[in-house]
Amino acid sequence: MENMINLNEKNKRVGIVMGSSSDFPIMKEAAKILKEFGISYEINIVSAHRTPNDLYEYGKTAVERGIEVIIAGAGGAAHLPGMMASLTALPVIGVPVKTKSLKGIDSLLSIVQMPKGVPVATVAIDGAANAGLLAVQILGVKDPEVMEKVIVYKKKMEYEVMESRRKIEIEEI
Amino acid sequence: MENMINLNEKNKRVGIVMGSSSDFPIMKEAAKILKEFGISYEINIVSAHRTPNDLYEYGKTAVERGIEVIIAGAGGAAHLPGMMASLTALPVIGVPVKTKSLKGIDSLLSIVQMPKGVPVATVAIDGAANAGLLAVQILGVKDPEVMEKVIVYKKKMEYEVMESRRKIEIEEI
Amino acid sequence: MENMINLNEKNKRVGIVMGSSSDFPIMKEAAKILKEFGISYEINIVSAHRTPNDLYEYGKTAVERGIEVIIAGAGGAAHLPGMMASLTALPVIGVPVKTKSLKGIDSLLSIVQMPKGVPVATVAIDGAANAGLLAVQILGVKDPEVMEKVIVYKKKMEYEVMESRRKIEIEEI
Amino acid sequence: MENMINLNEKNKRVGIVMGSSSDFPIMKEAAKILKEFGISYEINIVSAHRTPNDLYEYGKTAVERGIEVIIAGAGGAAHLPGMMASLTALPVIGVPVKTKSLKGIDSLLSIVQMPKGVPVATVAIDGAANAGLLAVQILGVKDPEVMEKVIVYKKKMEYEVMESRRKIEIEEI
Amino acid sequence: MENMINLNEKNKRVGIVMGSSSDFPIMKEAAKILKEFGISYEINIVSAHRTPNDLYEYGKTAVERGIEVIIAGAGGAAHLPGMMASLTALPVIGVPVKTKSLKGIDSLLSIVQMPKGVPVATVAIDGAANAGLLAVQILGVKDPEVMEKVIVYKKKMEYEVMESRRKIEIEEI
Amino acid sequence: MENMINLNEKNKRVGIVMGSSSDFPIMKEAAKILKEFGISYEINIVSAHRTPNDLYEYGKTAVERGIEVIIAGAGGAAHLPGMMASLTALPVIGVPVKTKSLKGIDSLLSIVQMPKGVPVATVAIDGAANAGLLAVQILGVKDPEVMEKVIVYKKKMEYEVMESRRKIEIEEI
Amino acid sequence: MENMINLNEKNKRVGIVMGSSSDFPIMKEAAKILKEFGISYEINIVSAHRTPNDLYEYGKTAVERGIEVIIAGAGGAAHLPGMMASLTALPVIGVPVKTKSLKGIDSLLSIVQMPKGVPVATVAIDGAANAGLLAVQILGVKDPEVMEKVIVYKKKMEYEVMESRRKIEIEEI
Amino acid sequence: MENMINLNEKNKRVGIVMGSSSDFPIMKEAAKILKEFGISYEINIVSAHRTPNDLYEYGKTAVERGIEVIIAGAGGAAHLPGMMASLTALPVIGVPVKTKSLKGIDSLLSIVQMPKGVPVATVAIDGAANAGLLAVQILGVKDPEVMEKVIVYKKKMEYEVMESRRKIEIEEI
Repeated sequence: MENMINLNEKNKRVGIVMGSSSDFPIMKEAAKILKEFGISYEINIVSAHRTPNDLYEYGKTAVERGIEVIIAGAGGAAHLPGMMASLTALPVIGVPVKTKSLKGIDSLLSIVQMPKGVPVATVAIDGAANAGLLAVQILGVKDPEVMEKVIVYKKKMEYEVMESRRKIEIEEI
Repeated sequence: MENMINLNEKNKRVGIVMGSSSDFPIMKEAAKILKEFGISYEINIVSAHRTPNDLYEYGKTAVERGIEVIIAGAGGAAHLPGMMASLTALPVIGVPVKTKSLKGIDSLLSIVQMPKGVPVATVAIDGAANAGLLAVQILGVKDPEVMEKVIVYKKKMEYEVMESRRKIEIEEI
Repeated sequence: MENMINLNEKNKRVGIVMGSSSDFPIMKEAAKILKEFGISYEINIVSAHRTPNDLYEYGKTAVERGIEVIIAGAGGAAHLPGMMASLTALPVIGVPVKTKSLKGIDSLLSIVQMPKGVPVATVAIDGAANAGLLAVQILGVKDPEVMEKVIVYKKKMEYEVMESRRKIEIEEI
Repeated sequence: MENMINLNEKNKRVGIVMGSSSDFPIMKEAAKILKEFGISYEINIVSAHRTPNDLYEYGKTAVERGIEVIIAGAGGAAHLPGMMASLTALPVIGVPVKTKSLKGIDSLLSIVQMPKGVPVATVAIDGAANAGLLAVQILGVKDPEVMEKVIVYKKKMEYEVMESRRKIEIEEI
Repeated sequence: MENMINLNEKNKRVGIVMGSSSDFPIMKEAAKILKEFGISYEINIVSAHRTPNDLYEYGKTAVERGIEVIIAGAGGAAHLPGMMASLTALPVIGVPVKTKSLKGIDSLLSIVQMPKGVPVATVAIDGAANAGLLAVQILGVKDPEVMEKVIVYKKKMEYEVMESRRKIEIEEI
Repeated sequence: MENMINLNEKNKRVGIVMGSSSDFPIMKEAAKILKEFGISYEINIVSAHRTPNDLYEYGKTAVERGIEVIIAGAGGAAHLPGMMASLTALPVIGVPVKTKSLKGIDSLLSIVQMPKGVPVATVAIDGAANAGLLAVQILGVKDPEVMEKVIVYKKKMEYEVMESRRKIEIEEI
Repeated sequence: MENMINLNEKNKRVGIVMGSSSDFPIMKEAAKILKEFGISYEINIVSAHRTPNDLYEYGKTAVERGIEVIIAGAGGAAHLPGMMASLTALPVIGVPVKTKSLKGIDSLLSIVQMPKGVPVATVAIDGAANAGLLAVQILGVKDPEVMEKVIVYKKKMEYEVMESRRKIEIEEI
Repeated sequence: MENMINLNEKNKRVGIVMGSSSDFPIMKEAAKILKEFGISYEINIVSAHRTPNDLYEYGKTAVERGIEVIIAGAGGAAHLPGMMASLTALPVIGVPVKTKSLKGIDSLLSIVQMPKGVPVATVAIDGAANAGLLAVQILGVKDPEVMEKVIVYKKKMEYEVMESRRKIEIEEI
């Protein structure tokens, strides 16, 4: 099996993969969240359809390379998350990327409607930030410090809502 | 705040909740998978709309009661998974239950399209077995023995496909 | 229960809530209608997912604070209207806010497909002005003067159509 | 204008109308709820398409006949609720009835997507019971005793969930 | 019954109506086709929801005023074509106007899914030109000269395709 | 060009065609209405996809054979109505037949979304009776006696609604 | 890489694969057509998600084993056809299998919406017979005798329509 | 039968047809791929609805003119691919062109949902490049040199993904 992906990196906790470089502006939001929480990650383009060898290699070696959660984003007939889930025992989070014609309903159904035995933890269309946060929450099950940070993050959101509340009070109707 | 749910149980790893007893025939598939993997669980009816106090109590106390993953199933305007996710830092898996009129597309969109900051790990419509398996995979991140069982489970699925392959060979076309 | 929302205000007849400040340009149309009819109102950001404590506080105290009708707007997995309806005996009007990917069909189904026992009076996608008018009509059941104003409003609409009719008569085909 | 509907009845608080006798098995659930709450109602078949005169007469005389809320159910190209709302200043609740081919998504969109100025308070597909309850809640704005009954009704629902919770505890997984 | 529409005009063969002046840029395409074929027409704004009296008057008097075909365009919960069809024995052609959120699928279903007994001859979303042409074809059933013009029109379309064919031949690929 | 359809029949006013004998139980409802109104018709199976020669022959000879209106029903990728409309100057009424998987939404869109220049007068999914009635209304434009019968038919519908109204009055709620 | 599929068979022209034995009742229709045309085929269960190794092996060896066309059927998040297409240079025909909840619209979009570079020749939902026929047509490009048989098959369909035409002539309306 | 299309050209292997010159910017992508692979092709506008004679002529003469595969693109009620498939024994590839209102879901369903006996090999919405590639793959079944080029093309795609992978590595998150 000939693969061209460089998978020498070790000890990254989350592996982010996407089907195409055009998905990068969406998928980097997952990376930003992980960075914010101090979780190590790697980011790669792995196309289920154009680089099936790399897909296999990635999926088959993920556990041994120390990856703990995989985030996979793709659009249209989006097979990357589901195929990754078929190749590894790790939890795989799927991000349906919005498409030009069908606005991502094709991506969503291609990712979420997985058969029995191979789940993909699907988030909203273009919901890469939430994919990052879900990965953090999964790591929080294992690691109380991470869980603590999630609790703080949620508290911070409450304050942000409070702030935005103040702003609309002074808006003219 | 008065809640009527009995939440004295401790040390269950997975909490399964559903919006109505009519969801039980679907949601028990999650319990079956957990049982098969030897993961402790509790199962409850908690309606976001009819028992909001219990929902609040459940979500707020889940961490301290030792729950590690929550599986929430609901149909129609399915708010239970998302509201549970808003009330806890634990990962929440959502199961969209099929509905009479819209066949579960309403349940799916109500569960998966969560805003930034509050992800729900959504599985397929009526995909409760996969919700159970995803919970197992999440626990496997923490616990190598569980991960090992997932690997065995996946291998078993391969054998089952091989078996079914033999059967169709002898079918008459 | 710790809530951060300031709910000291009393004697407002309609409470307008929305899930995010990004909903404000849509939701302020409800406020405009209420203003036009001389109905007192308050307007707040209450996120079902990011400020569940405030949601509970708002819903639980609405009756005692003198609110008579609640208008709740949200987009995507839009749980605010339905959760508000679960927390109060007041009529709740839901406004599905248009979303980027699915154009509000997700918001609509998340709001309208409520289970038996907890109705939400749903209006059109981005139909906040109609939510305001529906609130006025509900208050008109109690208050004949308000009803009278609704009748006048409807008559005014007839005149506006008559005006627009004249304009197209002079347009070139 | 000749109408054939008998509209001599007075002093009913809620008027239930439906487009066809085939809607009766669904729409009678609204009547049951009203009966349970002790709210007087009348029930009629008024077809927007087959009896437009009766529709007109019904809408135009509803206020003077003492009706306070109208519940209108219809399926397919469901014009009854919206047309009723155009003919009266009363709040109109719309019930989208499930259809054979499109399962009620046609009914739902025909009812909920009303233009500015003429709202219909739309409930779920086949959600006639909730239409009844919403009518009760609207009357509760005016009448504290009715509001009190809604509060009791909601409490009763909590007990029912508690009951159903016990039942699944003894079910075999 | 008080109506404010001026319906003194006689001897127009086709009546074009639309729900709002915002539909005019679409609906004038129907008028253009009628003009091209030399068919007399009138064009009016008649809102089913904001001017129900005018709708009734228009529908009830259309036959006696000499109208032979009605073209009705509307968007969203589009009731104008169906209600017009309920009020007259004339053939009614419905034009579903594209909407901001749901792109006209709401308009289409509200117009086409009419119950037995009251058909609306529905054309494509924003298909006003075709509505005009269909009206011409219907008049052609009665009037051989009009039919002859339709045949010529169709032949002209063939030539136009032939022309466009030439153009792409010289395009660079 | 060899066609196998027997098109010797003359002087039928309405031509009913359908894509397959499986459409007959739906499409015969159109014939029943025409029979009820005393309008002569012929009924044929003409498959756009399996008998394109017959389709061509049917469309090209319809005018000269004295047909005045064509009703065409088909399901799935339903091309019969649109292709018939491309081959004749007569008005063509399209009936989208319900399908097993997509319930007729495929049939509807394949029939109604015709390009400029070739309209199909589309009725509801499985709305063959309405197709028959629309054909009658089109003939009524030419023939006052037929128009008179349509008026009587509509009056009869009003009486039927009145009858059904009585029945529900005696039903137990 | 360990695969468990027996791929010793050679010289079959068409390879039929499906994701699950539950797809067999649908997919055998493809085999029946191939049998009818005298085209050799093999039939296998290859699950993209449960047997990714076998999928890989099948796709990578298809050309060398003499397969000329692949037919792949799957339901839900249907990745088998697209993944097969990524692994081979042969034309791959995809059959979207109808699903319980979403009726196959999920299968269709998962199969047809492939990215640039990896087409899947998609047929109708449950359209396995057409997949077989399309495979025959593709082989007909190479083999004039097969093409001749397709021409005869199409002629036979014309006769069958003629037969069914006779039957409805004698049906009572 | 009078047709105006010039079909004197011989010995082109692929015939590309489209319903309108507005489809050209999409459909020329198919031509580009064929050019890249050195496959001869012709390109034509043939409207199923506006030039049915040319459609018949094209379909009926395609085999004798030496065409081996047909690519047909159309939007809305897209009948060109299916009608072409009904008129020839050659494999027909259908390209659903995106539409303004329904974004191509109408085109897709009109093309893919063909009845038994007349398949269309459907690709993604606006997927003309893939239609070209599928035509190449079909010719590759017959011609090993073409197949070899497909294999090289797929290898090239792998390299392109590898390149894009390098680019995102140096992007700032």
